[in-house]
Amino acid sequence: MISSRRYTLTLSCPDRVGIVAAVSGFFAQHRGWIIEASYHTDHETQRFFMRQEILADSLSINLAEFRTQFQDLADEFKMDWHISDSAQKKRLVILVSKQDHCLNDLLYRWRSREMVVDIPCVISNHEELRSFVEWHGIPYFHVVMSDKNAAFNQIASLFEQHRGDVFVLARFMQIVPPDFCNRYSGRIINIHHSFLPSFIGAKPYHQAYQRGVKLIGATCHYVTRELDAGPIIEQDTVRVDHGDSVEDMVRYGRDIEKTVLARGLRYHIEDRVLICGNKTIVFR
Amino acid sequence: MISSRRYTLTLSCPDRVGIVAAVSGFFAQHRGWIIEASYHTDHETQRFFMRQEILADSLSINLAEFRTQFQDLADEFKMDWHISDSAQKKRLVILVSKQDHCLNDLLYRWRSREMVVDIPCVISNHEELRSFVEWHGIPYFHVVMSDKNAAFNQIASLFEQHRGDVFVLARFMQIVPPDFCNRYSGRIINIHHSFLPSFIGAKPYHQAYQRGVKLIGATCHYVTRELDAGPIIEQDTVRVDHGDSVEDMVRYGRDIEKTVLARGLRYHIEDRVLICGNKTIVFR
Amino acid sequence: MISSRRYTLTLSCPDRVGIVAAVSGFFAQHRGWIIEASYHTDHETQRFFMRQEILADSLSINLAEFRTQFQDLADEFKMDWHISDSAQKKRLVILVSKQDHCLNDLLYRWRSREMVVDIPCVISNHEELRSFVEWHGIPYFHVVMSDKNAAFNQIASLFEQHRGDVFVLARFMQIVPPDFCNRYSGRIINIHHSFLPSFIGAKPYHQAYQRGVKLIGATCHYVTRELDAGPIIEQDTVRVDHGDSVEDMVRYGRDIEKTVLARGLRYHIEDRVLICGNKTIVFR
Amino acid sequence: MISSRRYTLTLSCPDRVGIVAAVSGFFAQHRGWIIEASYHTDHETQRFFMRQEILADSLSINLAEFRTQFQDLADEFKMDWHISDSAQKKRLVILVSKQDHCLNDLLYRWRSREMVVDIPCVISNHEELRSFVEWHGIPYFHVVMSDKNAAFNQIASLFEQHRGDVFVLARFMQIVPPDFCNRYSGRIINIHHSFLPSFIGAKPYHQAYQRGVKLIGATCHYVTRELDAGPIIEQDTVRVDHGDSVEDMVRYGRDIEKTVLARGLRYHIEDRVLICGNKTIVFR
Repeated sequence: MISSRRYTLTLSCPDRVGIVAAVSGFFAQHRGWIIEASYHTDHETQRFFMRQEILADSLSINLAEFRTQFQDLADEFKMDWHISDSAQKKRLVILVSKQDHCLNDLLYRWRSREMVVDIPCVISNHEELRSFVEWHGIPYFHVVMSDKNAAFNQIASLFEQHRGDVFVLARFMQIVPPDFCNRYSGRIINIHHSFLPSFIGAKPYHQAYQRGVKLIGATCHYVTRELDAGPIIEQDTVRVDHGDSVEDMVRYGRDIEKTVLARGLRYHIEDRVLICGNKTIVFR
Repeated sequence: MISSRRYTLTLSCPDRVGIVAAVSGFFAQHRGWIIEASYHTDHETQRFFMRQEILADSLSINLAEFRTQFQDLADEFKMDWHISDSAQKKRLVILVSKQDHCLNDLLYRWRSREMVVDIPCVISNHEELRSFVEWHGIPYFHVVMSDKNAAFNQIASLFEQHRGDVFVLARFMQIVPPDFCNRYSGRIINIHHSFLPSFIGAKPYHQAYQRGVKLIGATCHYVTRELDAGPIIEQDTVRVDHGDSVEDMVRYGRDIEKTVLARGLRYHIEDRVLICGNKTIVFR
Repeated sequence: MISSRRYTLTLSCPDRVGIVAAVSGFFAQHRGWIIEASYHTDHETQRFFMRQEILADSLSINLAEFRTQFQDLADEFKMDWHISDSAQKKRLVILVSKQDHCLNDLLYRWRSREMVVDIPCVISNHEELRSFVEWHGIPYFHVVMSDKNAAFNQIASLFEQHRGDVFVLARFMQIVPPDFCNRYSGRIINIHHSFLPSFIGAKPYHQAYQRGVKLIGATCHYVTRELDAGPIIEQDTVRVDHGDSVEDMVRYGRDIEKTVLARGLRYHIEDRVLICGNKTIVFR
Repeated sequence: MISSRRYTLTLSCPDRVGIVAAVSGFFAQHRGWIIEASYHTDHETQRFFMRQEILADSLSINLAEFRTQFQDLADEFKMDWHISDSAQKKRLVILVSKQDHCLNDLLYRWRSREMVVDIPCVISNHEELRSFVEWHGIPYFHVVMSDKNAAFNQIASLFEQHRGDVFVLARFMQIVPPDFCNRYSGRIINIHHSFLPSFIGAKPYHQAYQRGVKLIGATCHYVTRELDAGPIIEQDTVRVDHGDSVEDMVRYGRDIEKTVLARGLRYHIEDRVLICGNKTIVFR
């Protein structure tokens, strides 16, 4: 990872010969210095996916000019494409309930500048975490969940008002309404406390305990209408044994939930995640 | 692990004060040198589980005397108990189909004396692996699967005739009939090529590929009437990514299937696995 | 793990027949309910090590009576022994420099009551972390390192004055003087940012980068006179590749440093670590 | 991984703008369908490394024409380059001593066609493994080590005579003479039974046991003049604890030695490993 300003181009298009040549030719023509490049072809859809990171200062044209000139090439190849600027920090709106291990972890990564993002606000259905969040100088909003539709309308308003880029459900523990999922498709990231697709829904550690599994896990995924069934970004597991109670599993689980969410979120923030149907391509 | 001759006592009984004192007192009285001792209380059933390994030569009584004298103590505490002698090798009857990576691994561990067992025969529903098995000097039996009941009767006969202790389904790929499962309850060990309870049944790597998981796994478990739902002995996972095809997953999977089966089987052979309902206690 | 009040007995003595019987007999006689028991024999020294956790309320005698009566048994077997009371929280004195990822992690585990300890003070050779520590209501002491002997005398005074039980070097980055190591032998826990014995001393991530290793690690160990050579309590590793810069390694490393220190410290706090020469026995 | 015939181009050259454009332009011009592409810049040397896999049938020119025409481009960019043809299987000459777990593993991967290579012969300083190797139809040569120079001359002769591409030291347990290392630089792959740079030289598991580490490892690396100090291709670790004897470590170690060697070797065979000074770039 280089700390200089970078542009990150991500795109997908029908696979054919010459895509890499065309795109890298375009960059070369404008003196763009490629720092990192990744490609993938999905064999089921015959669709090609690409991510390129370019040193911003190396480019002989500015971003606006880039957008205009690249569109011709994109049209020719029928590309869906997007370019982002590392100088433009992503804005994370964090949703939490009462459990704060993921929140504590994310706020530390933010305040230590390991994770280069803006956190315009934290939203919760409880009051408990207000003082900790506000100590960081971040606004905290309490949304009452009694009327769920009203609550999610309020959440959407806060997100728009704070110009959010992505929702992070840091153990939010509330099921997100389908229309909200649709509206923010690919922009809601959840951490689920099991190794999906095992143990969907409530109390996954209890389910894991009952089944007697020898590893437990955590899954970072995009939220879709179907519960715990959206595209998976990152997962990990940790060993347990017969001596571990549900409480022990909860404790071990917290440590992997934190790291899996932090890794998945980082991939999203760095535009490393491309969604392909119900799966992800993660260009690490 | 000590290579001297050992007796291994395993037991379970209702939990109360004084069990360890009584059992270790019994050993001390007969000069039994304890090499390894493990305990566990299952909090749901309030049942106590114990495993003790004793140096055979240290004991002032022989195994027959032990059995007689220990029964009084066992009665007092309402123990289910079992004692095994490391000089009496466990007899593994291996069932295979065409895929031979687990078979190759087990036979290597056997011939290198890493796994101290007898393998009186290998049974298969195909002819393919005969020459490799017979090169090891192990009898190979081909059982035709067209009539499933007849086939499993034949398998049971071969097992009895060869005085088998445990069946190892080393990628056998056949569903075991319920009455066979019941008859050999706790004596049929399977390796399933997924992280259970995810991806039960056929083609788990295809299922994993479709779901887009970021880790795949393998599970060693006892076979029960319900498909892929028996007590889990051992599991492990390995990382995959979007670039991995189903064939790549199959290839990575083979490596964890081998090690998970070998570890689970070793625990069983060393009497480290106690079954508690649909879960296992594994005293590693 | 059970949250009820527990006594934890740890001991070591020359190995012989009857130790377990004697100790568990002693507990049974006083109605002590054993929650957890672990044994180990070190074959090089023929020394036996034991740890037993007993439910405090089950015991028919109090802790003072226990100490008196157990001494006879301890004398007979020539035991070094210790009993601790879970109601008596261990007192951690944390030493830090400027890097605060381990500190943030420990303080979170403390304030979320995952780690049941007292933290009477934090000592640093810098001012930077004062406000964060004081927000937790924990006193913060700044010790100037220009005169190293004076500084460590001051640290020892603060430790004594605050009745510390154990020092935690949470990335303290200062070499501890030999006489200080001796004085607090077995009571100074350090996190070293490499997989020891690889990359002893300064800048281990740079050393790892230069050597081109494919995994980096972290090690939690007791501090002794010889730099980074004390008894190891816990270690872990994480995968890196040619694309990772030293800065990436530092970032990955922070996550394993935190978890390795937290795990190692937990083992120490729960009296699960017994020192045997330059090695540890960790009864997990 | 695609099973169709592929060409794999690997190259390195001084870093500058336009390399990717030039190479991918060259492929596009000749209708070459890129299956996989990987790049890396070494920031210390400012050298650029690339690997491209092309579908052989897609190319409008044959390999001889490719070589001629690509040379112009290579000259312009001062490239060191190499192109290989998947139809041309790599020829592995395996050296073994008496320990056969890695040999058994490699021969299985070869005979199950998981590893698509030729094994023209196996060379050993002992007779023990002859029958197992010959059962596979592979010639076995016994080389006496009493005169080490003569022995390695004989090994070199056998390698040349069998048109070997790479030596695999599958637990060969002999130190390779410096001039032999130089002659076959980048073509001798060893598996060392420790996590290098820890525990260089003889009996690493004994060293690990003495140091009391909590993880042990294995390292696959290219052999150079300096013992166990060549470029590392792959490593892994496995957890041990105080209860594990040296023999237990040896047993666990065998399993990671096998998989680490198999993975490292696979990377080499698929031309995924580029050497950069004393480090490797592994394009997985």
